[in-house]
Amino acid sequence: MNSFRFYNPTALYYGKGQIEKHLASEVKRYGTKVLLVYGGGSIKRNGLYDKVTGILKEAGVQWLELSGVEPNPRLTTVRRGIETCRSEGVDLILAVGGGSVIDCSKAIAMGTKFEGDVWDIYQRKAKATGALPLGTILTLAATGSEMNSGGVISNWDTKEKLGGGSPYTFPQFSFCDAENTFTVPKDQTIYGSCDMLAHCFEHYFHPTEHTSLQQRLIEGVISTIVETAPIAVESPTDYTARETMMYCSTMALNGMINMGVQGDWACHAMEHEISAIYDIPHGGGLAILFPHWMDYVVDENPARFAQLAERVFHVDPSGKSQREVALEGIQKVREFLVSIGAPTRLADYGIGADQLGRMAEQAVRFGPIGNFKKLGSQDVLRILESSL
Amino acid sequence: MNSFRFYNPTALYYGKGQIEKHLASEVKRYGTKVLLVYGGGSIKRNGLYDKVTGILKEAGVQWLELSGVEPNPRLTTVRRGIETCRSEGVDLILAVGGGSVIDCSKAIAMGTKFEGDVWDIYQRKAKATGALPLGTILTLAATGSEMNSGGVISNWDTKEKLGGGSPYTFPQFSFCDAENTFTVPKDQTIYGSCDMLAHCFEHYFHPTEHTSLQQRLIEGVISTIVETAPIAVESPTDYTARETMMYCSTMALNGMINMGVQGDWACHAMEHEISAIYDIPHGGGLAILFPHWMDYVVDENPARFAQLAERVFHVDPSGKSQREVALEGIQKVREFLVSIGAPTRLADYGIGADQLGRMAEQAVRFGPIGNFKKLGSQDVLRILESSL
Repeated sequence: MNSFRFYNPTALYYGKGQIEKHLASEVKRYGTKVLLVYGGGSIKRNGLYDKVTGILKEAGVQWLELSGVEPNPRLTTVRRGIETCRSEGVDLILAVGGGSVIDCSKAIAMGTKFEGDVWDIYQRKAKATGALPLGTILTLAATGSEMNSGGVISNWDTKEKLGGGSPYTFPQFSFCDAENTFTVPKDQTIYGSCDMLAHCFEHYFHPTEHTSLQQRLIEGVISTIVETAPIAVESPTDYTARETMMYCSTMALNGMINMGVQGDWACHAMEHEISAIYDIPHGGGLAILFPHWMDYVVDENPARFAQLAERVFHVDPSGKSQREVALEGIQKVREFLVSIGAPTRLADYGIGADQLGRMAEQAVRFGPIGNFKKLGSQDVLRILESSL
Repeated sequence: MNSFRFYNPTALYYGKGQIEKHLASEVKRYGTKVLLVYGGGSIKRNGLYDKVTGILKEAGVQWLELSGVEPNPRLTTVRRGIETCRSEGVDLILAVGGGSVIDCSKAIAMGTKFEGDVWDIYQRKAKATGALPLGTILTLAATGSEMNSGGVISNWDTKEKLGGGSPYTFPQFSFCDAENTFTVPKDQTIYGSCDMLAHCFEHYFHPTEHTSLQQRLIEGVISTIVETAPIAVESPTDYTARETMMYCSTMALNGMINMGVQGDWACHAMEHEISAIYDIPHGGGLAILFPHWMDYVVDENPARFAQLAERVFHVDPSGKSQREVALEGIQKVREFLVSIGAPTRLADYGIGADQLGRMAEQAVRFGPIGNFKKLGSQDVLRILESSL
């Protein structure tokens, strides 16, 4: 493995009743003025808004609101949040939502404490200098943003979608009660499953040697997703399935299964280019790209793919070459994604060939992408073309 | 899974060169007066003492020393450390050693900030009220104490060995460079392997339902230990094997693979009674007890044992009952322990039947032990007798 420093100070609360028991005291550790950030209002329909604001009220905590955060959260929304935090002297940001709401809140938290344009941090022109404290209440199992310091923001003016973060943007606390995901619609449940699976794949494919435990931990998360996602998709109020998926999503991107590993992340970079132009769901884009990326890179290390095939998808290797086992594993990944109703082609979102060249160029503007196999713009273009 | 709060703020540094790069700055965050705690002096023979004190000197950090910490660290040593910290105004405790040195340092850290007798905390008569900051440099892969808040102390006057901890005793930072374990003798390498394996077993056996991901993560650690321990035992300077074992030991007891699970811990409770009287190595005692405990409790949930047998030890279940698969798995655990040279019977340490009754009574003095199966003193006695 690589040398590494691991540090993750988020206090993670899982299970029923934790919000009722611990939210007020956690919030009050940081002050009495909160910016409540949420999305399109599903939390008003399912009662979570009333529960949370009731607790804040009873605790004597004042709050302001930033609502309507977009599925691919926009820089314009972030800027509105920063303005509010600065002018109102907010003590704590409380994000109630999924990855988009939390990512947006992280950008606001950093931006409020940054003397300059927050977009510079995402463009890698500057580093964050601090952040407002942030707490989260998760409502969608997908991104893992509730227990990491990163996030993705879209600049709709320049059609750019960039990831960024800082040591300051770990949530101070995160509440994960699977009941708050019961009303997540079927398509979002599918996309969330694809997203967490994609995070596992990103960690799993890299050229670093001697990572046997890391590989097994990742396989554990993938196996559990493959076993549980179909249940969560079909039975949205199955508490156990929802909780297991939530837990998989947290573990897939909180840094615990990939210490000492620099994963690939080319599919994420490519997906960002697609959704920067077409605003498609992140998890849907990843579901389309990953099998095609796998086909393209399998010969870098067929043994890794064969291991995935055998350990996770129970492919019987007898009488087959390693490459055949590897390809059968990729086919199993495809079949799993189809089985839960994930999209398989860019055409599923009405996306044609016309912008692929631009996306391929944009994807590599900071240099080649990917760590398992370094991809230049021509590689990216071929993968995008095969995904049409 | 159970509702849970997970919080682990230790900054973990893994790999070669991390001490040289980061130790000085980590130490200086807490002050300029350090209590350097270590054991029998192996760090003087292998050069680590010179490296660490050289770094402290260059950083302008003063240090006092507490050396000779015992393999089962004693309350008398803890008290000496507390006295030094109080009288000298120590800012940070730096533990350089294995679990015993780190556990002793945690007790000193808590005791220094506690107005009363530190033993009361271990006897569950009082709770810690704070702790001095603590950093560690790990030299033995075993207990996971480098990334958790617990520890075990022996009171030699009363022949008691008790575990304790607090939210204050997570190390602030821990440096894990596998090269610092190259000189660990063969028997200690074996005991360390048994200890980390035992932690996995403790987490794996419990009555909590719906813990599929946790089970898979634990199986991942067990599989990696089973694969790697024989190499580390036979080739002590194999960096990869030593690093993998070190990483397994950290992950086995830092809370990451057992969130939402209350494990069993009866074997740890029983082992503490044995070594409180006979001062045997903790890992050796666990290696003796676990297979006998498994025989005794298998019928509580043969499916869990069968799963371990199939997933970790590749037992072929065809044509066998679940119980047969389970028992074959327990046999594989025995064979693995024997294969790395672990002790199998109390007689290996010259322990006879005469104190077993006293141990059985002592083990349950706070109530029945174990969570997979609750054990009373008669149960404990029978397991101890089968271990003779």
